[in-house]
Parts: sequence; C-alpha cells; structure tokens
Amino acid sequence: MNNGKFLVLEGVEGAGKSRQCAMLVQSLKSRGVDAVLTREPGGAPLAEKLRELILSPDYVPDAVAELYMYSAARRDHLNAVVFPALERGAVVVCDRFVYSTLAYQGYGRGLDLDFIREVNRRTIEPLEVDLALFIDVPPEVGFKRKGGADNADRVERENMEFFHRVYNGFSEMCDRGELVRINADGEKQQTAHNILQAVLPIL
Amino acid sequence: MNNGKFLVLEGVEGAGKSRQCAMLVQSLKSRGVDAVLTREPGGAPLAEKLRELILSPDYVPDAVAELYMYSAARRDHLNAVVFPALERGAVVVCDRFVYSTLAYQGYGRGLDLDFIREVNRRTIEPLEVDLALFIDVPPEVGFKRKGGADNADRVERENMEFFHRVYNGFSEMCDRGELVRINADGEKQQTAHNILQAVLPIL
Repeated sequence: MNNGKFLVLEGVEGAGKSRQCAMLVQSLKSRGVDAVLTREPGGAPLAEKLRELILSPDYVPDAVAELYMYSAARRDHLNAVVFPALERGAVVVCDRFVYSTLAYQGYGRGLDLDFIREVNRRTIEPLEVDLALFIDVPPEVGFKRKGGADNADRVERENMEFFHRVYNGFSEMCDRGELVRINADGEKQQTAHNILQAVLPIL
Repeated sequence: MNNGKFLVLEGVEGAGKSRQCAMLVQSLKSRGVDAVLTREPGGAPLAEKLRELILSPDYVPDAVAELYMYSAARRDHLNAVVFPALERGAVVVCDRFVYSTLAYQGYGRGLDLDFIREVNRRTIEPLEVDLALFIDVPPEVGFKRKGGADNADRVERENMEFFHRVYNGFSEMCDRGELVRINADGEKQQTAHNILQAVLPIL
C-alpha cells in the first residue's frame, strides 16, 4: 500500500488549510515529486454526494450519524482516490482526515473518543498516516480571517464554544504525538515554509 | 425510552417480510394497539436519501462504507421515527434492523462480526430490541416467490452464494438466541399466525 506517502493537514475553520495544502503540493511538484492534492469529505463521486448531505442545513444528523457519514465518505475517498495514488508511489496531501473526526465529533460533540478511534482505524485500514500536521490558528483568528462563518454550512453555524472544544482537541492530539503542531502566527508564506520543513525530512 | 415495544422482522429477499410487517401491524391495530410500521433503511428524510445512495447501481461502496451508510440511516431513522413513537408508548414494527447488517455486511461480505456488533450497539443506544423474528425462507424460495432478483437494486445483483451466507448468518443468530425463528413454509396467513403467536406474549 504505502509505496507513496500520505500527509494530512488539519485545523479549524479559517486556519488556511486548503491554501496551505495547495501551496505544499505546488512546492513538492516543483521539486519533481508526484504529489496529489485531495480533501475530505469528498473527492470521489459517492463521497461528494455524502458531503452534500452532511453539510446541508436541510438535515440534522446527530453526532453518531455524522460520524458514520464522514466515515463512509472517507472510505469511498480512500478506495477511489488515495489507495490508487499511493500504490503508484505518489505523495498524497489530504485536507482534513481522521483527526478532524476526533476533534469535531469527539471533542466537539462529546462522542466517545475510543469508539471514534476504533471506527477510524477500521475505516482507513490498511493505510497508515505518514505525517499529520496541525495548522495552529485559534478559532477567533480563523473566523476573522475568513470574514465570519458560512451560514449555508451546517457545521459553521455552531457556536464559538464548540470550535474551542475542537481546537483544544487538536491541541491535545499534538500533545499525544498524533499531530505535529505548525506555527501559523506569521504570513502565509512563513507558514508554508514551516510546513515544508516538517514534510521534507520524511520524503 | 422503552415505554413502547420495538419488534423486528428479518429475512432474505422474497421472504415476505414487508407483507408480514404490514399484516402484523394490522392485527395489532385491530386489537386496539397503537402500532407503527417502519422499514430500514429509510423512514426519515436523511435516511431515505442515504437509502437511495446505498441501493443505487451508480456507486460501489465497499463493505465498510456500506456498514456506515446503513448505520447512519439507521440512526437518523431511530431519532426521527422510532424513539418518538416508543416514548409515547407505541409498538413499533421494523422491517429489517441490526441483524441484517450482521447478516449482509458480516456473514455476506466478510466484515468483522465483533466490529459490526460494536457499531450496532453504539448506533441504537439506548434502545433495546424487545423481539426480533427471522422469517425462515431460503434464498432460492424467496427469489422464486418474488419472480427473480431486481437488477435495479445493487444488493440484489449479488450471486446466490452471497445470499446463502446471509441466510446462514440469520440462522446462526437464531442459534445464538438473538433471533427467534418463524416457520414460513406454509401459506402467508399461516406465517402471519405464527408471527402473532410469538409477538402477543411480550406485549
């Protein structure tokens, strides 16, 4: 499976994950690396359909249903996009992964963390993550950067306490050694540099 | 939660579950019981959307993704339909439930049974099933009764060995005491009678 490398960028809303993922893939490509950018949830036909259902304000799945919908989308995305890319030896950069599930459904919504870890393990097997980075931007700063929450997005309608629990969850995962914390206080070019310094040694 | 009673009918394709569920609810209503008929997957807006995705031949979720999609639909269906009905003291008759997940995704597709049991437990808590019946019709008989498999239904496109594993799974759950076996060799009125004889003592 792991002929390639699987890298993850995590963070709260407005942390600049998507931009940083794109910049990282660009940097890797300019170094001649076969790098693939992908995101969660989504990235495959069934996963994209599930993403629509998850984010739609028309439905109100509870934390358990949310966990399963994200996990189904993740599995589909892995089968359709990630596993084939890793087989051919690519470096896959994934915008959000299992750590978001722990942070949002676990720390955020209070679902049992051990159960989420077990679901995560079953969802991604036989994949092992090579490196997972936490773009450390507190939620107030993130929402300010992105000009406020997107009210068409069910998750972004949550209150600030929710996003603080999510942020603290990511932070705790850094302390546990599951995530590597990336300083994101400076300009985005500086953050991109910090990310690249963490990534290059493992390639 | 369990002011009411939660009853399940299980079986392979063509076993006559849906008809028997309807007949059971009718019998209960004629006895003055507040009986509610519902089915899986589906029975609630998000669950119905998930059902469409699960059964569509356009997508090819693997067993893991299937497990999560069924479980998300189940959770939504419980929250939207079953829990409120049980709260008010109704008898809910459900066409398929967690035993189908064990039979199809576990025995049928080979997913780890212990993991499915854990997912099932988390999905339905705090619900406990009061009675679950297996309408014992072998797959050959079932498909013959329904005039062959429905090719628009992704699950029914499976081969006969798959449905034998599913049937054997249900049978093993009867041996474990998780399901009560209902003889369905005779006419449907006889089967309906057998079901009612199993149900009445627990009401």
